[in-house]
Order: sequence, then structure tokens, then C-alpha cells
Amino acid sequence: MRLTNFSDYALRLMMYAAVRKNELVTIEETAALYGLSRAHLMKVANQLTRAGFLKATRGRNGGLSLAKKPEKIRLGDVVRSTEPDFALVECFESGNQCLITPRCRLRGVLQEAMGAFMKTLDGYTLADLLLRPADFGIKPAGDASQAGRRPMMRP
Amino acid sequence: MRLTNFSDYALRLMMYAAVRKNELVTIEETAALYGLSRAHLMKVANQLTRAGFLKATRGRNGGLSLAKKPEKIRLGDVVRSTEPDFALVECFESGNQCLITPRCRLRGVLQEAMGAFMKTLDGYTLADLLLRPADFGIKPAGDASQAGRRPMMRP
Repeated sequence: MRLTNFSDYALRLMMYAAVRKNELVTIEETAALYGLSRAHLMKVANQLTRAGFLKATRGRNGGLSLAKKPEKIRLGDVVRSTEPDFALVECFESGNQCLITPRCRLRGVLQEAMGAFMKTLDGYTLADLLLRPADFGIKPAGDASQAGRRPMMRP
Repeated sequence: MRLTNFSDYALRLMMYAAVRKNELVTIEETAALYGLSRAHLMKVANQLTRAGFLKATRGRNGGLSLAKKPEKIRLGDVVRSTEPDFALVECFESGNQCLITPRCRLRGVLQEAMGAFMKTLDGYTLADLLLRPADFGIKPAGDASQAGRRPMMRP
């Protein structure tokens, strides 16, 4: 049982954007930090922007930032927007051919289990995952050497 | 988010074995009933036998039957034995390279959510999914025409 890489990368991008709160983060620096594909992360960023979790600022000094406060972003809502489906087994999909579908109780049990999974995620927000810049190898503002591509704004 | 087809087929095979309780079921008839690959279902049956959920009887009239009463078979235990892993995201796997792993709290949140999922499944047994032979298109014993390959034993 797995979440897609898409959801994994989405949560990681959000966690990075949360830690850089007053600055714009770029796909390039985030991809480099996590060792992820830039192209894949771009798709993730587009989805998170469409879903209203990230705000994209265009232009040469553009980048991404959180569209809401971290405590307003429930993890369950992020995962709902990034998972392509919650088709735990075949009969959750349209076109299912399983002969016992009309009477089967497995679907209901699995839906209940999935509900318990999502309810747990809904009990946490991005604020619960908040890290410090140092956890990303980012030196405190004022120090010129940083892991990220973009210089941090000085206070 | 999905379970593997392996788990899906395992649950379906168990449900069929449960409904044919006093008889041996074959891979052939189960594969035909559900429209599944015989080879794939054979691997599922081998795993369920190894895990102690099914009992295999060899020989020309051999087949599979439940190794325990349906009410003794928790759905969570079946899924634990058939899912290859519960690596919801990359950092659940060995060799993970994510730089924030040492401080990240996402892993703990996802483990809690997975625990809630499995706890729900552990609250149900195969007995809760029990269907009637008619749900599989099987006529009552005594009627010669049946969906299954193997004739039902007469009372």
C-alpha cells in the first residue's frame, strides 16, 4: 500500500515552502535539495497551485510560496488533491467486472478503513510538520553560503 | 492510494473459499468465476497457504479450503500477509536519500494514519464478508447446472 510519488513530492515541496515562509522558493532549488526530477516537481507545483495550496509569482525573481498559513493547510486535503484516486481495489473503479460486486461487503469495509486513514491526516496541518531552515542545510540569514540557489533576504 | 491486485485477489479467493465451506475450491474455477489470471491467482493461493489462511489438498480431486473458521481470519492479517510493503512514501524504504529524514515528522503522521487503516480492517473478519453461493452464480446443491467447474457434493 503506497501513496504516489506525486503526493510524496507535494508534501515535501509544501514543507520546504513552509520553512522559507517569507521568501519565494523555486522548483530548481527544491528539486536539487531533495534530489528529485525538476520536470516531475514542476507538475506537482502546478497541481498545488491549481488546488490553492501554493501561490506562483511569475518573472525573473519569481517562485512559489504558501497560499495560506501552514495551520490552515490540512494534510488530508493536500493528499486528496494529489492522489489520482483512492481505488483501493478493482471494484472502486468504473467498468469493474467482479461478479460479486452487487452483494460484496468488502468495499464498505475498505471505504471505512480509508476514511480512518484520511481522518488521521485531517487531524494534522502543515504547521505540525514545520522544520527549521537548518534541517534543509540552510544557514541562518546573513551567512552567504547556503544550500539553496536563491540568496535569503537579509533582515 | 491502492492495495495491490495481489491483496484484492487474495480477499476474493478467501471469500469464495468461505462460501464453499465444506468443499475444496480450485484455482481454475475461482479464476473463471472472477475473470482473473490463473497464474496470478496460483501465486496468491500459494501465499495464503504459506500464511496459514488456506489449506491445500493435493491430488486429482484436490483443491483449497479455509485453514481456519472465517470468524478467526481478520482482514487486517490477510492484507498484512499479501501487501509487499506499507511504504507509503520514499522514507519508509531502506536506502532513502531524503535530506530531511532525521527531523521529518511526516513519517510518524503517515504511520499513525496507516495504523488507523489497519485497525479498521482488524475489526472485521472473513465472516463479516460471507456471501451466499447464489451470489457467485452457484445453484443450490442438487441442481446439476452450476457456475463452478467442480460438482458440489450432494448432502
